[in-house]
Amino acid sequence: MANMNDVAKLAGVSRGTVSNYINGVKVKAVLAERIEVAIKELNYVPNQSARALKKQTSDTVAFILPTIWTPFFAELTHYIQLELQKNNLKMLLCNSNNEFTLELDYVKMAKEEKVKGIITISYSDIEPYITSNLPIVSIERYFNQRVPFVTSDNFQGARLAAHELHKRGSKKFLMILRALPANLGIYERMNGFIAYCKHEGLEYEVYMDKGESMGFAQRIESYIQKEYRNECPYDGIFAVTDRYAEYVIQAFQNLPWKIPEDVQLIGFDGARSYHQQPLTVSTIAQNIKEIAKVSIEELLQFDGQKSFQNKHILPVQFWDLKTTRNLE
Amino acid sequence: MANMNDVAKLAGVSRGTVSNYINGVKVKAVLAERIEVAIKELNYVPNQSARALKKQTSDTVAFILPTIWTPFFAELTHYIQLELQKNNLKMLLCNSNNEFTLELDYVKMAKEEKVKGIITISYSDIEPYITSNLPIVSIERYFNQRVPFVTSDNFQGARLAAHELHKRGSKKFLMILRALPANLGIYERMNGFIAYCKHEGLEYEVYMDKGESMGFAQRIESYIQKEYRNECPYDGIFAVTDRYAEYVIQAFQNLPWKIPEDVQLIGFDGARSYHQQPLTVSTIAQNIKEIAKVSIEELLQFDGQKSFQNKHILPVQFWDLKTTRNLE
Repeated sequence: MANMNDVAKLAGVSRGTVSNYINGVKVKAVLAERIEVAIKELNYVPNQSARALKKQTSDTVAFILPTIWTPFFAELTHYIQLELQKNNLKMLLCNSNNEFTLELDYVKMAKEEKVKGIITISYSDIEPYITSNLPIVSIERYFNQRVPFVTSDNFQGARLAAHELHKRGSKKFLMILRALPANLGIYERMNGFIAYCKHEGLEYEVYMDKGESMGFAQRIESYIQKEYRNECPYDGIFAVTDRYAEYVIQAFQNLPWKIPEDVQLIGFDGARSYHQQPLTVSTIAQNIKEIAKVSIEELLQFDGQKSFQNKHILPVQFWDLKTTRNLE
Repeated sequence: MANMNDVAKLAGVSRGTVSNYINGVKVKAVLAERIEVAIKELNYVPNQSARALKKQTSDTVAFILPTIWTPFFAELTHYIQLELQKNNLKMLLCNSNNEFTLELDYVKMAKEEKVKGIITISYSDIEPYITSNLPIVSIERYFNQRVPFVTSDNFQGARLAAHELHKRGSKKFLMILRALPANLGIYERMNGFIAYCKHEGLEYEVYMDKGESMGFAQRIESYIQKEYRNECPYDGIFAVTDRYAEYVIQAFQNLPWKIPEDVQLIGFDGARSYHQQPLTVSTIAQNIKEIAKVSIEELLQFDGQKSFQNKHILPVQFWDLKTTRNLE
């Protein structure tokens, strides 16, 4: 395989000139042309590691998230990848599986590799390991004032869910969520829902699960079966994610109450498993494409010296699908 | 930030010795210990680009696939990532969006970056650009004798689908697929289905769509609406992916025929949108976890000099869910 010396020889220039040309340092037009011809002739491929060393940066962005195996994360990864491609950037995909040490490994790796930056949806406490000169954008989780932060309006979204249930005739409310580490949108959703119910003087109950993700579907089923066995205590359910809403639908399959006739149900996310998938659960939809777009914009203009934070709280909307009744 | 000279100074050794130590060249135990202490003391992070240059390889594997935004690709990416992590490898995610030039860019990039290898589900013709010294494994698509190849048994899977429809009472068959570039498992599925019908002397029809992915759901709906308006011409449908099967279910919503009472339906893939998602469409399930495992094994023992191919055709199985009737 041809190396830089071969190119220099064929072009009749010094190795340094070839090196400058490849690393974007200006060389005379006539020499640049000869070098370009020689590169094509020899089918020379510059060594990226050498270039990264020289430029002290790479064109890779690390995307750290717990998993890509949910509709929300798959759709988000899809759109982030599209935005990166528009900017000639590549994605190093880092599924942390919620393991703190793994996330930390990725942050270290990112520093070693001199990646252009990190986009993270971290559910663990990597804050002390983030330095101010590493471009980073956080989705959904607030770190500190120097880390740009992109999230959906979880509080207003949950208020909207309660409001839509209410105006479609529900009177007694149930919210379903699972406890997760601090600072997540989930809690904003809880607060928004409670705020609406209190303001309107509505009865509500919160089912807050403290267990692991594994087995949550079964625990929801047991809870719903128990609560709804003899009566229909809540006629409006807000599940803080669409996945939990699907668990609720499963739980109702062997009960005498029908969705949405007896019980209305609203989820949260509006993510699809594939492009144009028809959705059925009424939901508070996040603008996933916009989250991706804003995150990459923030990353590209990152400035760790700023003392204030760029905080983007993106609007959500209600999608009236098959688990809510029509307005009269 | 500390550099190699700082480490050398603190450890009281030469810069070359530190360099050797970092790059895995044997140094005296007593010196190694002093270097290790100095590295910890200074919180020194070796520059990965410099190391990659030295080692002429990296710990990154490029995964090239059309998109991650389908349940099959999301689940496969999940398991491939897990297998890479077990081997301390990172994933460079390359969504080609079915664009040939983009896939080619990624192959070039892979060579430049000196990635450890490529795993690809390519639907376009990148074969001429693959060199024998670049470890590569192909999933689902056959390239040539030197590229290890991992696929599910699409032919037997489709035969099995026809057989299961048949033994559950279906008599007249319809297969639904969309034309895709050459060499895909899709055509094996078509051939397997036809082979079974011919062997058993069964009537069958093939609906082969020639259009784009976009709008396929609507075209299936029009076709089904037209065929089933006045009669029920086919009582057993095989859709070559679960997604197409979902389109079929949508299409039947406004027709007088019920699934599975009047028409049985079997899809293909058995992929989930998230871990433990309850599935409803009866399907021929691929062993996605095993595809990932075998692919990484093959990549790690790649030997481009071999003149024969390691071909893995993994078994599939029938999952009897809600779109097929019980056996009598």
